[in-house]
Amino acid sequence: MAHHGLADRLQGTDQNVWVEFGNLVVKEKALNLGQGFPDFHAPEYVKKALAEAVMSDNPFLNQYTRGYGHPRLVKALADLYSPLMNHPIDPMNEILISVGAYGGLFCAVQGLINPGDEVIIIEPFFDCYEPMVRVAGGVPVFVPLRRIEKPEDAERASFQSSEFCLDYEELSSKFSHKTKAIFFNNPNNPLGKVYSMEECEMIADLCKKYNTIVFSDEVYEWLIYDDKKHIKIANLPGMYDQTLTFSSAGKAFSVTGWKLGWTIGPPHLVKACSVLHQNCSYTCPTPLQEAIAMAVEREIPKLGSGCKDCYLLKLARELQPKRDFLAKCLQEVGMKPIIPDGGYFMIADYSGLMNASPEINLGDSNEPKDYQFVKWMIANKVFLIR
Amino acid sequence: MAHHGLADRLQGTDQNVWVEFGNLVVKEKALNLGQGFPDFHAPEYVKKALAEAVMSDNPFLNQYTRGYGHPRLVKALADLYSPLMNHPIDPMNEILISVGAYGGLFCAVQGLINPGDEVIIIEPFFDCYEPMVRVAGGVPVFVPLRRIEKPEDAERASFQSSEFCLDYEELSSKFSHKTKAIFFNNPNNPLGKVYSMEECEMIADLCKKYNTIVFSDEVYEWLIYDDKKHIKIANLPGMYDQTLTFSSAGKAFSVTGWKLGWTIGPPHLVKACSVLHQNCSYTCPTPLQEAIAMAVEREIPKLGSGCKDCYLLKLARELQPKRDFLAKCLQEVGMKPIIPDGGYFMIADYSGLMNASPEINLGDSNEPKDYQFVKWMIANKVFLIR
Repeated sequence: MAHHGLADRLQGTDQNVWVEFGNLVVKEKALNLGQGFPDFHAPEYVKKALAEAVMSDNPFLNQYTRGYGHPRLVKALADLYSPLMNHPIDPMNEILISVGAYGGLFCAVQGLINPGDEVIIIEPFFDCYEPMVRVAGGVPVFVPLRRIEKPEDAERASFQSSEFCLDYEELSSKFSHKTKAIFFNNPNNPLGKVYSMEECEMIADLCKKYNTIVFSDEVYEWLIYDDKKHIKIANLPGMYDQTLTFSSAGKAFSVTGWKLGWTIGPPHLVKACSVLHQNCSYTCPTPLQEAIAMAVEREIPKLGSGCKDCYLLKLARELQPKRDFLAKCLQEVGMKPIIPDGGYFMIADYSGLMNASPEINLGDSNEPKDYQFVKWMIANKVFLIR
Repeated sequence: MAHHGLADRLQGTDQNVWVEFGNLVVKEKALNLGQGFPDFHAPEYVKKALAEAVMSDNPFLNQYTRGYGHPRLVKALADLYSPLMNHPIDPMNEILISVGAYGGLFCAVQGLINPGDEVIIIEPFFDCYEPMVRVAGGVPVFVPLRRIEKPEDAERASFQSSEFCLDYEELSSKFSHKTKAIFFNNPNNPLGKVYSMEECEMIADLCKKYNTIVFSDEVYEWLIYDDKKHIKIANLPGMYDQTLTFSSAGKAFSVTGWKLGWTIGPPHLVKACSVLHQNCSYTCPTPLQEAIAMAVEREIPKLGSGCKDCYLLKLARELQPKRDFLAKCLQEVGMKPIIPDGGYFMIADYSGLMNASPEINLGDSNEPKDYQFVKWMIANKVFLIR
């Protein structure tokens, strides 16, 4: 008999860059710098909190907990974020715990987007936004961050992520009465751009004008470098009521493998996410939630006092020299890095290296050039770092 | 501005029996016997495996792992299930690790069901099947397990779950060329029925005739009482190729709060689930997968030798006297339990108690009578057990 295939909603979404490159990396035994996770240990106290939760005298810490979020965790998060968001967050109606921020984004899209709804995606973007919108039958509308090229670019050894900006005319031309939502990823993955107040206000004003929901993906909210400031768009006047803010225990505490995230917003938007969440997962792992609750409870006073030992503040200080080291390495082999102001990633322009290296032969595939270049690097196992 | 509401696909799915009764139980400080999780400790070696994984020298056990399943876990599961399913399971293409069996069912429905596809659901059923089908735009088609009433019923103190059967004529009348899938829950939640070979063959024959996919929910596969035998419908001739089998670490190892499950089936069906999984969760928690891999590896030789210390075999032996105790308690207060052959649950006929207790006043709500009765019990905090 004929095999059943993918449901129509999945057509065109079966290719996945992580799966494709992940398999290649394993096959060629290369170093995977693409996927965003630390290669250092998670903080000892966070790991110990999980070991304690699972070995606890309380047998219920290994059993189902409240579907929309473990009570101890949502309370801790309300305590952490209420002052940061200038809003008394109701832990039972304004927070949803999800399978990573990724799962939270999926619930939001499926919970709120109808077929035909337009959703603006700012380029470059975290790859899952587009298939999530398409699976829901929504229509992605793309708008790029642009950098104005200048004659002196040729002389420069690097660029800054802050040089990439939205053009107001271009952005506003994408908004209409069909614009149900916009993905706003701040800091941006993969560019590392941290949006300025003027840019946040520009987006907020358009969203208020068109009653557009903001999906504010802030998983890198704690990973801000130099003296940059991270602005929560939900904090702008009138914006809390039409913003869902997504964050991640994995990114905050260097435990990406725990797949635990949260969505914060007004009750009517969180409710829509929760209804989908109860359909697709029902609840998240209890011991992980208990451990992250303990970690958040520990961080709150340290954050308030700006304590050196505050992990949420410390991580960016530890990563910044690594960022600078990687930028230097890329420059040394002839690439021009775009220095990120936030997040895990660094983009680089490799055209200088290509021009100087006739031995790099990408062949004539129809794939995007950057795919071809990375595949060439993986296959040739070149150690570019001197 | 007008608030955005639930997406159309969620209309009618926002009510949830667990949320409703869970809230009531908390409010009234009642004992929740409805939701299926143990009130005893998970096995020490499983808990220790998680504590070991999280505290391991290998920092990557707290970071993202392979999206479709942690390599060590899918290999262990292939080793466990290949002999049980008389099929050499390919760990990389025939297993998907999901957010509980619940998450696996969601991926299967969203991955395979198109709007208008009919999906047969055998009543009584685990409540999520119906909204899962509706959210995908599928059409649920219900068929009940029936018990033929007899004059001597009045004299009986209990019934057996095996007395509830599918009527062949009725079942076959529900199948047509539109029948894309059938939910087959064996052992059945909440009835505790374990299907006989004849019943499995009847369903398999209809599924082969109409090229219908079986969603075989076998989360209680290890919880089989007395001398009953659990049959995997995927093992019947020709059925592997059109069956997805769902199981659960939570149920197998008494850690429902870990929310880890697996889907096993032919590559073309698992692929459809995987594409949706990479859209909604991407990957499951690494330390939980590592710990369950260790647990499965430990069980395989014990299961093979029928060892007394095999947890997968031991749990049912431990729960059976509890089943019998609960049945006795229900009988003592005037209810007639249906004795389950498998699973966590017990259904009881409370009409005898109602008839003998004029003080039980359910009022005149339009809700189903059993909802009303349970709400009366919760509100009146009656200790029915003598």
